[in-house]
Amino acid sequence: MSILQSALDRINPLDPTYFDQAQAHLDSQTKPKGSLGTLERIACRLVALAEGEAPSVDPARVYTCAGDHGVAAQGVSLFPQDVTRQMVENFVHNGAAINVLTRTAGVDLKVVDAGCLGGPFPEHPALVQCKVAPGTNDFTTGPAMTRQECLTALENGVRLALAAREDGMKTLCTGEMGIANTTPATALFCAYLGLEPEAITGPGTGLNAEGIRHKTRVIERALALHAPVVATGDPIDILACLGGFEIATLAGMILGGASLGMAIVIDGFISSSAFAAARAIHPVVAEYAFFAHASAEPGFAAVMDGLGAAPLLNLGMRLGEGTGAAMAVFILRCAANIYNEMATFASAGVNPGN
Amino acid sequence: MSILQSALDRINPLDPTYFDQAQAHLDSQTKPKGSLGTLERIACRLVALAEGEAPSVDPARVYTCAGDHGVAAQGVSLFPQDVTRQMVENFVHNGAAINVLTRTAGVDLKVVDAGCLGGPFPEHPALVQCKVAPGTNDFTTGPAMTRQECLTALENGVRLALAAREDGMKTLCTGEMGIANTTPATALFCAYLGLEPEAITGPGTGLNAEGIRHKTRVIERALALHAPVVATGDPIDILACLGGFEIATLAGMILGGASLGMAIVIDGFISSSAFAAARAIHPVVAEYAFFAHASAEPGFAAVMDGLGAAPLLNLGMRLGEGTGAAMAVFILRCAANIYNEMATFASAGVNPGN
Repeated sequence: MSILQSALDRINPLDPTYFDQAQAHLDSQTKPKGSLGTLERIACRLVALAEGEAPSVDPARVYTCAGDHGVAAQGVSLFPQDVTRQMVENFVHNGAAINVLTRTAGVDLKVVDAGCLGGPFPEHPALVQCKVAPGTNDFTTGPAMTRQECLTALENGVRLALAAREDGMKTLCTGEMGIANTTPATALFCAYLGLEPEAITGPGTGLNAEGIRHKTRVIERALALHAPVVATGDPIDILACLGGFEIATLAGMILGGASLGMAIVIDGFISSSAFAAARAIHPVVAEYAFFAHASAEPGFAAVMDGLGAAPLLNLGMRLGEGTGAAMAVFILRCAANIYNEMATFASAGVNPGN
Repeated sequence: MSILQSALDRINPLDPTYFDQAQAHLDSQTKPKGSLGTLERIACRLVALAEGEAPSVDPARVYTCAGDHGVAAQGVSLFPQDVTRQMVENFVHNGAAINVLTRTAGVDLKVVDAGCLGGPFPEHPALVQCKVAPGTNDFTTGPAMTRQECLTALENGVRLALAAREDGMKTLCTGEMGIANTTPATALFCAYLGLEPEAITGPGTGLNAEGIRHKTRVIERALALHAPVVATGDPIDILACLGGFEIATLAGMILGGASLGMAIVIDGFISSSAFAAARAIHPVVAEYAFFAHASAEPGFAAVMDGLGAAPLLNLGMRLGEGTGAAMAVFILRCAANIYNEMATFASAGVNPGN
């Protein structure tokens, strides 16, 4: 059996009895019932993930997966394609936003070459080599990946989750880098969630109105070309036609993380397309996912609605890399610590009120 | 000159040129322009607070100021009044939510007896004795405080800010505890912002619909009784009639912090009423204030609109104590670290795009 199939076989729904037990504990703590809002709901889910044990979030790791996209040739990004590679170097040398925010949040960071243009990067302790191929094909002229390439990327992702678990990680965060990758992400949302390109195509790194119109047409052409595959509903074939190596790797990581009972923090727009793919492959992954933040990409609200997801933070960010996910780990940590460390009315001698 | 007046004389508008300089630096860093959204706007304000130097948020301190309220006799809270004192003990013994969240966020915590019922608390390194009187008077039958008591509380707050600065603090966070204190807070919002009790009175710790109706009537009676004072527009007399010792102490702390050029993080519903008082006394304090989170108290959105404020977090919290403010320090820290630590396009050799 493949490593992917064996991960899929081990993804189980959370046991609802843990939620009730956890809420009862929270209600015994010295605060008005429910007054910590979302933190209490997070804590309950973390308790269920820990199967009733003390919830824990740390250590947590971001995998920032990078890949290049053939569709960049269609002029859908403000940045040239070699910036993907330059940013991987920047990640490895600690210069990017994700480096700052993982340090600030006390989160580990690994950078993954999931499929960047060019040859392998020099070996580095912070870098994981998972290049499936040097960039995808232009999905306006054919599938972005072969089905086999897509499966390889998914399995790479499962392996990243396994490696994180071996390193003791409790929480997995998605991150990505790939010039032009809002284009495949948008196409995937349309294919998996039945959304329209016109409704959710946005500026990405900063396209103007004309640029957005052009990008919308590019996505419409791709969806028209691959409509027969989308119509089959096969989630892996759809991912192969419309996705990217970093997106498929992250989808595999999400599936792998869920199979290991880890909390999974989904970053922003691109990462949510990886989640959409993972959810199409195995819907139960949704129980393991926390949505980090509301991307400023204008279509994101419709995407969250389509996924039935509510992001934790809303700070107008639209950078990717895992930046929102790293910050959201702090919110999860607050929830776990509240559950584990607060006094109860009985232990503190506080009147529990009416 | 009083310590309050000398603080007021030292509150100056931030220099707008620092904002432009800071944004230019952010735009040179390896990310699409503006892609860190709110973090960039926070960073600019922190640079202006630091007068163009490297912004810093740490160390940061929460002062959780506690006081009792005569209006509790009107049955406006689910909890008995002695819970204020019990919770102060809980804070001092590290059992409350604010203890957990300040530890998690790496923020210092001091607990302040601003005017709790009963005698002084035992001395403790985490406790600051600032009791103006053992609880306010019931403001449905007369002023909550005398003007002199209110001034004493304001000056206590200025002294708390000065003590924090002496201890090297860069950031001041407001926190509070006081059974029934959503009632004076709501009355203050009505008085300072022209809002109606019917529109913004909420459940506080968990009143049902009938409890909220009763609380609304209590607030309406108080506003009717003190209408002549509200009509004068004197912000300190309004605070004396309708406020509380912890609210007035926090208002003084906000003014004192602004006079020292500190970043001030305003917690939730009650703390925002202290901010409303401080802003009525000196409008420029708004430039120093960061609003931590959107309280789940239903009137809070109207209050934020009235104050022209946008909270950073929205996690359905309604606990007070400074819990939201402690968490928001993390967001400010992320912003400062991004500004100080990220590489530029030039230093990292990344193509800055179009």
